Amino acid sequence: MRPFGDTISLDEARALIGRALKPIERIEPVVLEAAHGRVLAQDVVATADVPPFSRAAMDGYAVRAADTAGATPANPVVLAWIEKVFTGQMPSRTVGGGECIEIATGAPMPDGADSVVMVEETAADGPRIQIFNAANSGQNIGRQGADIKTGQTVMRRGDLLNASRVGAIAALGLAHVDVYAQPRVAILSTGNEIVEPGRPLQPGQIYDINRFTVAAVVAEHGGVPIPHRTAADTMADLDRALDECLEDDVLVFSGGTSVGERDLILDALGSRGEVLFHGISVKPGKPTAFGLVNGRPFFGMPGYPSSCLLNTHILLVPALRLIARLPPAARRTVTLPLARRVVSAKDRHQFYTVRVADGVAIPAYKASGDITSMSQADGYFEIDAATDAVAEGTLVEVTLF
Amino acid sequence: MRPFGDTISLDEARALIGRALKPIERIEPVVLEAAHGRVLAQDVVATADVPPFSRAAMDGYAVRAADTAGATPANPVVLAWIEKVFTGQMPSRTVGGGECIEIATGAPMPDGADSVVMVEETAADGPRIQIFNAANSGQNIGRQGADIKTGQTVMRRGDLLNASRVGAIAALGLAHVDVYAQPRVAILSTGNEIVEPGRPLQPGQIYDINRFTVAAVVAEHGGVPIPHRTAADTMADLDRALDECLEDDVLVFSGGTSVGERDLILDALGSRGEVLFHGISVKPGKPTAFGLVNGRPFFGMPGYPSSCLLNTHILLVPALRLIARLPPAARRTVTLPLARRVVSAKDRHQFYTVRVADGVAIPAYKASGDITSMSQADGYFEIDAATDAVAEGTLVEVTLF
Repeated sequence: MRPFGDTISLDEARALIGRALKPIERIEPVVLEAAHGRVLAQDVVATADVPPFSRAAMDGYAVRAADTAGATPANPVVLAWIEKVFTGQMPSRTVGGGECIEIATGAPMPDGADSVVMVEETAADGPRIQIFNAANSGQNIGRQGADIKTGQTVMRRGDLLNASRVGAIAALGLAHVDVYAQPRVAILSTGNEIVEPGRPLQPGQIYDINRFTVAAVVAEHGGVPIPHRTAADTMADLDRALDECLEDDVLVFSGGTSVGERDLILDALGSRGEVLFHGISVKPGKPTAFGLVNGRPFFGMPGYPSSCLLNTHILLVPALRLIARLPPAARRTVTLPLARRVVSAKDRHQFYTVRVADGVAIPAYKASGDITSMSQADGYFEIDAATDAVAEGTLVEVTLF
Repeated sequence: MRPFGDTISLDEARALIGRALKPIERIEPVVLEAAHGRVLAQDVVATADVPPFSRAAMDGYAVRAADTAGATPANPVVLAWIEKVFTGQMPSRTVGGGECIEIATGAPMPDGADSVVMVEETAADGPRIQIFNAANSGQNIGRQGADIKTGQTVMRRGDLLNASRVGAIAALGLAHVDVYAQPRVAILSTGNEIVEPGRPLQPGQIYDINRFTVAAVVAEHGGVPIPHRTAADTMADLDRALDECLEDDVLVFSGGTSVGERDLILDALGSRGEVLFHGISVKPGKPTAFGLVNGRPFFGMPGYPSSCLLNTHILLVPALRLIARLPPAARRTVTLPLARRVVSAKDRHQFYTVRVADGVAIPAYKASGDITSMSQADGYFEIDAATDAVAEGTLVEVTLF
């Protein structure tokens, strides 16, 4: 067996990863229904005005403002109704002096009229329409191009398409748009002992956990999880596994990064690409490796499920979002007193999981091999490498999952 | 035309909606790969221990701790190597006095041994293994059931399945799990003037926006958007549209809620179900209706895209999450000085959209008919009904989209 070499600090690990990453360049068209959450790979320039015509902004009457001068509830102005315009229709008449056209919100303004009096400020007596308030020229009109003007750059390459931006693209009449591809993330668990959930366990076997947790996090942060079959602890099988991942943009293997003789991931990575680091002074998650295979970032996560999942949050998520051209993940934190003293690993930056209840942070960390260290926790706080213990009652900043 | 009736306050609207909602009862199985983000509809009880056997927590040697008493780097204890156990294998030997078994992290502990000495604290000289530190009984072992014990209730009905909880279910060997169905949300735009993006516009027509924005928000908050074809402004078409939505759990129509003669949504809703309110004293979004059709919540959103989208955030999202049994949406806020004075509608609670840049909140609201009021904004701040203007420099709490 080979003893562990020197570990590097979390900051060094982050820097090495950061330098190895490139934002994705692959572009694909998506229909508008699927554009939400995607990143624009094109500028969006308006080829027409929005709205495409001036329209009534209220239900009421299209009038010439000058005709309504001096109107009050006590002394209404009376105008002659000449037609009604609904949405989706064009007016057939022009509003002349003393005339008005009944108009629905969103219907095109008739020629001749310069304002709309809302229905609440009128009364109809057959074709005689009483106007109770003087109109200002331009009132209650949504002008052609007021929302978006022809030629305007409405969005730019790199913009994240949230609901309202998808709406603005719809307003321009585009049915599809070019976006950056979502990084394909190959996810693979290694280990002779690993069995798919749903199958019976033989002695010495355990169920695969990491493929499911990593896939869930990847999907949440703009990646497409591509699960691969479990690889056995042989160079031949790992080599074949690497071959099967070469269509993917990011490789996340778990297990096989510790120092046992059969922990062959590093050998496989070294023979096929470049190991940039192995071993980080964090807890949990020390036996984490990172490198490049055919220019693709390769994360060798620890096999232990809590180590793997925490390092997925800490290292993979920022990397994946950078590749996917997404902004950093929104971090939700809460600062609470620690419910009881915890002891931390010497010389390792520790991520200590806690449950949040009754206004305190209750230590939830058991062991890196226990998935319940994570699944019974609401988040984690960090303990720097120089600190060996945190006293009960200390205010800790909890990053929520 | 029918003038607008009395509006109700936002709080009253929320209370009326809240009383009309029921959490979804429909249950469906999902494979574990699709369980992330879903809500458990069953308790999860462990039918076996996790881990299913006691295992080495480190690469090293399984020993009897008593045999290592007094070992130091200067005076190592020497033990006899008798076999090697990798993960996925069962030991074939029992560790006797003075013996040790080489063991990999995760491999089953051999009988006879009570602890593991990590490889870093040893040196091998052929089959003679030098132990440099005395072991404590139990050290570096992950005990059978230490993570999860047989019979333990690991998760409960109603728990939201995040990545680590999906992992805990995988650890138990379950390949699928029962979850609550995601509410199906029928989304339909009404209006003779509304055209699908991708088709040419005729005079007086505009592109559909609301179907896309509402669908994006619904998908983000645990619903399944079910887009329906645009309905014309006739009772017959609205009636048929309602018929086509009766398989869905929530109905969100937009347009047709103002007071024009052809705004028939309310008539359609009234004839098929119950109108619980029409008109809220908010801006934008005043002409919003809510009711029940065949016991299903019906949201009649304004046709104006910014009104529709803001009310989707303000009213539909909390309702949808309650129905979907999801916790309230995480609200991200930032408090910033207002870049310039804004005037607010009298007697209406206003949601004023702003862009966040250079440490200030820059008013972005144009008009409720303009989608750019939303798409060029990063969030909104609220102005209560009693306030008519907010001065430049006032600190405002911006809720980010």
